[in-house]
Amino acid sequence: MTGTRNSGRDRHCVKAALAEVEKLHSDRNYRQASGLFYVEGVRNFVSAIDRGLDISTLLFSEKLLTAPLARKLVRQSRRSGVPTVSLTPEQFRRISHTPRASGVSAILRQPWVELPKVSPQTGLCWVVLESVRSPGNFGSLIRTSEAIGGAGFILVGGRIDPFDPNVVRASMGSIFRQAFVRTTFSQLHRWMRSNHCCGVGASPDGAAELHQFDYPRSTLLVLGEERRGLTPQQRNLCQHFVRIPMVGKADSLNLAVAGSLLLYELYRTAKK
Amino acid sequence: MTGTRNSGRDRHCVKAALAEVEKLHSDRNYRQASGLFYVEGVRNFVSAIDRGLDISTLLFSEKLLTAPLARKLVRQSRRSGVPTVSLTPEQFRRISHTPRASGVSAILRQPWVELPKVSPQTGLCWVVLESVRSPGNFGSLIRTSEAIGGAGFILVGGRIDPFDPNVVRASMGSIFRQAFVRTTFSQLHRWMRSNHCCGVGASPDGAAELHQFDYPRSTLLVLGEERRGLTPQQRNLCQHFVRIPMVGKADSLNLAVAGSLLLYELYRTAKK
Repeated sequence: MTGTRNSGRDRHCVKAALAEVEKLHSDRNYRQASGLFYVEGVRNFVSAIDRGLDISTLLFSEKLLTAPLARKLVRQSRRSGVPTVSLTPEQFRRISHTPRASGVSAILRQPWVELPKVSPQTGLCWVVLESVRSPGNFGSLIRTSEAIGGAGFILVGGRIDPFDPNVVRASMGSIFRQAFVRTTFSQLHRWMRSNHCCGVGASPDGAAELHQFDYPRSTLLVLGEERRGLTPQQRNLCQHFVRIPMVGKADSLNLAVAGSLLLYELYRTAKK
Repeated sequence: MTGTRNSGRDRHCVKAALAEVEKLHSDRNYRQASGLFYVEGVRNFVSAIDRGLDISTLLFSEKLLTAPLARKLVRQSRRSGVPTVSLTPEQFRRISHTPRASGVSAILRQPWVELPKVSPQTGLCWVVLESVRSPGNFGSLIRTSEAIGGAGFILVGGRIDPFDPNVVRASMGSIFRQAFVRTTFSQLHRWMRSNHCCGVGASPDGAAELHQFDYPRSTLLVLGEERRGLTPQQRNLCQHFVRIPMVGKADSLNLAVAGSLLLYELYRTAKK
């Protein structure tokens, strides 16, 4: 009898967890309202633990999860009181968006940082974004920013969701090692002034050329959206504009490529 | 009566053209067997004409096509004997894969170039690929190669299709201004030897660092696939391996980003 009651409760718990995963996957408003996001796979799970993120629910499938480190971390999390839902392989595969369901995933609290609490001297630079069309481009930029030792991303306004599952996937784990700040233009202006930051915008009409520019300390790299480029409000943040040289009829690059070229140029010149 | 016969023939012609577009869009084998590909939009159409590509069929919708230059080019093509199919806006929208159907598209002959006919001195460099997972990454690389004045792409084996509609779209028109060669490893080895080319591979275990390497003239930049990197056969093409520096826990970059960093470093050092 007890067994029956338990499995009834489990079934409810499983159902609620699966429904929440689905909502976190497809519903941006729900992600925002709940402050949660969903990640899948051993590597992401281990990174989330490394980063000390707050786990709201841990989901795993005993049969699918073979990686010893991940199994150990699941046991530890469970013992320390993290709500844990055990799934059958079929249930796990139903919520899995990767080709091979690894058997572990987690609902995590979104790790936002507040602007007044960050410093422009943390890391090599910060990237300022207002809008990005392609989650893949944003994810790639997060990877590059980690690779050059960047601190993270300052997102102005509400357009960009770094915890979109497609961004998380494209970041290949770098999402856990970059900081994310959400702010407004007026707050950012104030913060930049009081911290003596320099805004450098990427623009085809920039006076300076990528390889000939002396990147200042405490640079905020300001990148525009794929098609429309920098908005007037973004341009207002910038003291300098850098253009990427192009030959022939080429007139633009992929956003992740353009941003990464600037980030690596910052890295190259900082090392000298 | 004549009118009825004509519109009957037109209907048949329209139906056949729409079916061919659909096949070119979704069926790689058909693209390969026919040697054709499909492009949409004013910019692509104008670029195809500029490049002097062989138009197999031109499709347009009088009502949708407003751009004066494109309208003029459609009239000229028609007069010069290019098979032209006139579509209703509804028919055009059915084959359109862009948010706003521009009213012109074309079935084109794939412009392959043969390896013996190209020179390693054409352009700043050639990029050698064997496999790429993401059409978006390949398209972005084509954009960057054009932007630095690269000659084009040498594709080894049959895995990569540069005329995949997703690659064409991501290239943003650069596909028309880059050359594409299909070859085998043995042919490429012979060509490289007789042309005194130098293969430079991008690899995390490279002895040289991105910014410290002296890129030789007649460089072939050899890039591996997103996850597995360079294959042993690709490595055999390379005299040097260059690694992109990364700090922290980052261990890889997006392929289009990594390839573009190398291409722009080639460009930067060639200019000095």
